[in-house]
Amino acid sequence: MWFDQNLFCIKFKPTFRNKYLIFRRFIQHFFMENNRICQLFNIQKPIIQAGMIWCSGWELASAVSNAGGLGLIGSGSMYPDVLRTHIQKCKQATSKPFGVNVPLLYPNIEEHIKIIIEEGVKIVFTSAGNPKTWTAHLKQHGITVVHVVSGVKFAVKCQEAGVDAIVAEGFEAGGHNGREETTTLVLIPQVRKAVALPLIAAGGIGTGSQMAAAFALGADAVQVGSRFVATPESSAHQNFKDAVINTKEGDTQLTLKQLTPVRLIKNKFFSEVDAAEKKGATVEELTQLLGRARAKKGMFEGDLNEGELEIGQISSAIKEIKPAAEVVNEIYNDFKLTIQALQKLSS
Amino acid sequence: MWFDQNLFCIKFKPTFRNKYLIFRRFIQHFFMENNRICQLFNIQKPIIQAGMIWCSGWELASAVSNAGGLGLIGSGSMYPDVLRTHIQKCKQATSKPFGVNVPLLYPNIEEHIKIIIEEGVKIVFTSAGNPKTWTAHLKQHGITVVHVVSGVKFAVKCQEAGVDAIVAEGFEAGGHNGREETTTLVLIPQVRKAVALPLIAAGGIGTGSQMAAAFALGADAVQVGSRFVATPESSAHQNFKDAVINTKEGDTQLTLKQLTPVRLIKNKFFSEVDAAEKKGATVEELTQLLGRARAKKGMFEGDLNEGELEIGQISSAIKEIKPAAEVVNEIYNDFKLTIQALQKLSS
Repeated sequence: MWFDQNLFCIKFKPTFRNKYLIFRRFIQHFFMENNRICQLFNIQKPIIQAGMIWCSGWELASAVSNAGGLGLIGSGSMYPDVLRTHIQKCKQATSKPFGVNVPLLYPNIEEHIKIIIEEGVKIVFTSAGNPKTWTAHLKQHGITVVHVVSGVKFAVKCQEAGVDAIVAEGFEAGGHNGREETTTLVLIPQVRKAVALPLIAAGGIGTGSQMAAAFALGADAVQVGSRFVATPESSAHQNFKDAVINTKEGDTQLTLKQLTPVRLIKNKFFSEVDAAEKKGATVEELTQLLGRARAKKGMFEGDLNEGELEIGQISSAIKEIKPAAEVVNEIYNDFKLTIQALQKLSS
Repeated sequence: MWFDQNLFCIKFKPTFRNKYLIFRRFIQHFFMENNRICQLFNIQKPIIQAGMIWCSGWELASAVSNAGGLGLIGSGSMYPDVLRTHIQKCKQATSKPFGVNVPLLYPNIEEHIKIIIEEGVKIVFTSAGNPKTWTAHLKQHGITVVHVVSGVKFAVKCQEAGVDAIVAEGFEAGGHNGREETTTLVLIPQVRKAVALPLIAAGGIGTGSQMAAAFALGADAVQVGSRFVATPESSAHQNFKDAVINTKEGDTQLTLKQLTPVRLIKNKFFSEVDAAEKKGATVEELTQLLGRARAKKGMFEGDLNEGELEIGQISSAIKEIKPAAEVVNEIYNDFKLTIQALQKLSS
């Protein structure tokens, strides 16, 4: 016999049934070890916490990594010295892998990259820019690079740029969506078909059943944003967290498509932007209306009227604030239960 | 032993393995017989072909029903006598169940309902209106009633109205979408949670992997529209079918949100509507621009410039015209293969 009967500390007779059950357990264990995203990042659960401005600092990232997923520090809202502090605190808070999300269009990008390399960060997710600009440089420093896209043609560009994996993000997502408005359900199978790289689905995913749906579409992992905003570890203002769990169907909308498309909770600020767009405002007029620090005012300072409140469409399904580890485990367990329930359907 | 060993015309020893395999086959067969949508309509495969204006007459509906799904005649583009002819021809072309889709806001609605009852149609899908208006009347005549919704609050209204099942249709869909822009991935789990009725997912579904995703989200069946437009049996003009299979990512967009939201291929007509909306056109101005018979001109007469071309976002993934029966079988087989592949992930 090819395995030790005492390996599992249970006695069993070598009947077909028992052999089958143990073989199945082996296969299952083997599979998650062979999940390409788990292998790439050396994590246990293929659940990535999205790097989000004003919401995901070291506390959230380390909590998710400690729970077996991959936490990301969102550097887009951080000054360089703030980013360095968050990376250092994250290293103290977890011995597990974590990463940093870097929106490539942000002003301090060169300094950010320098700090990331100096601090020995091993995983970087880039977004909102051309993957060719920084991928080679980061990889020369032994960093695993993932780029976020919203369409098939950008996914192909990522492959050419030599990234290690792709996040494909649908229309449902909270921030910096594609102008094509392709939803996750339509996007993932087409990206899966076009590129061979490990694929992380994002947008509209906050539960285990949605994670199972993403895997059915061909994803190797999921990236979850909004659901992690409503955790004690998120650095979002309490007012914003409360707003997220009180969001109802239809309370968010993709807007600012002439600038950088983003999904917002429909508050006073949103109404002003929407009215301006309906009146045919120019890019300049919109930029002026947006002004400075609207996102900080809303998400970090908790001004629910004048602030910009970026969140995904699934916020309408989030009903309570709960610890990040609980969110990771709940999504992962429901994912497995959903797949087990689906087994009854195949023949 | 509780079953006849010769039932399957194979000889087998009553080992655990063989018992298990046969038991599994029984369970699987039993399951599809217990699928609530298959039971409700007395069909073999939980795949509904959407009733679409100008595209789904008796030829398409009967072909889908003959393949084991449920075909629907789209009455929204038919004069009453044309509808009667289509129902009569469909009855001749198939002995299997089929239905009629009735958009409740169309002008000839009373006459349509009268004909449907007179012709003995057993299944009616209502859409674009209040489910309370006609459900009781139809059910008094022994008709199974399904209503199409785009949000949770409408799903709850359907339950109150006494419908037999619900179609929940996401932002991705081709026609008469909700103003909330809720996508199928976000919509289905919330509707599933809110109502106990059998649930059919629609919008963004054209392959077996998308069908499996819908089932993961809690659907009992899927409604597929766009994929059936590109079949020989569809009554769409050949120009429109060719346009559908040539559609690329980002080539469709939801528009006319001030009137009745609809997803269109971006042609000359779309550009005119879009420009008018960007200039802040009123409902009256848009209604005048839309004019009469734009949908017929585009989808039935094949005018790809001046016509309105309604189609779902998945059109970008449709690459060839193939028989409706082949579409049904391909979706169903890929659905089963996807679920079998997912089994490896559960533990």
